[in-house]
Amino acid sequence: MAGREKRPLGTLFGLNDFGVNLTTLEPGAVSSLRHAHTTQDEFVYLLEGELVLVTNAGETVLRPGMCAGFQAGNGDAHHLVNRSQEPASFLEIGTRGGDDSASYPDDDIVAALDEQGRWTFTRKDGSPYA
Amino acid sequence: MAGREKRPLGTLFGLNDFGVNLTTLEPGAVSSLRHAHTTQDEFVYLLEGELVLVTNAGETVLRPGMCAGFQAGNGDAHHLVNRSQEPASFLEIGTRGGDDSASYPDDDIVAALDEQGRWTFTRKDGSPYA
Repeated sequence: MAGREKRPLGTLFGLNDFGVNLTTLEPGAVSSLRHAHTTQDEFVYLLEGELVLVTNAGETVLRPGMCAGFQAGNGDAHHLVNRSQEPASFLEIGTRGGDDSASYPDDDIVAALDEQGRWTFTRKDGSPYA
Repeated sequence: MAGREKRPLGTLFGLNDFGVNLTTLEPGAVSSLRHAHTTQDEFVYLLEGELVLVTNAGETVLRPGMCAGFQAGNGDAHHLVNRSQEPASFLEIGTRGGDDSASYPDDDIVAALDEQGRWTFTRKDGSPYA
C-alpha cells in the first residue's frame, strides 16, 4: 500500500480490545483493498484533508469532523481513497482478536485469521496467493 | 456532570464491540469522576481546546492531536478536566460489554455492571448510593 502511513496509537498504551491507528494517505493512496469484516467493527474519523469513502452504496466525500462506522458482519465493503492534492489523515479504530475474516468484492482475494492470529490470504477458489 | 455533552457516534453505525463518543467539556467541566476500569480499555484523542489529564502519576496537559490510552485492569484511575476558558472536545473510545467494574480512588463510590449490562453504583462499604 504505497503512500499510506499508519501510526499505531493503541498499542503505545497496551490496549488489547481494539486497535487505534493514526493513518495518513498521500494523494492517490488508498486505505486498503475494499473489504468487509465478519466479526470486527470498524470506525473512522477524518482529522485533516479530504477522502472519498467507497462502500457498497457508492461514494461519499469525508471532510474533517466527519466519521463512518462499519458494523461487523453487515457485508458492506469499504475503503478510503485520497483523490485530492493534499495528504489526508484519519483515526481508524477496529476490534482486535476474534475469529475474523474479510471479503473483497472487487478483488480475487479472501483473508482469514489463522490459529496464531495472523492474517492469511488466498484466491477466492482457495488457491494460495503466491 | 454539568457542562459535559456526549455525542454517541459508534451507535449511529450499530457498532457493538466498542463505543465512540464525541465529548465536549465546557470550562470547569470534568469528563467523569476519576476512575479505573477492570475489563474495558479506554482511549481518548483531543480534537479541540485544552484539557488536563489527571492520572495516578499526576497531571498532563493535552492539546489537539495528543492522545492517551488506559489499559483495562492496570488500576490507573483517570479523568479529564477543562481548566481553560474555552470548550474542549475529544473522541473517547471504550470497550463495550463484558463483566466490567470501575474503581474511584478519590470518591466513596464503586460501580459494577449488573446482569442486564447496566451500571450500578454503591458506596465502598456496599451500601446503596441513594
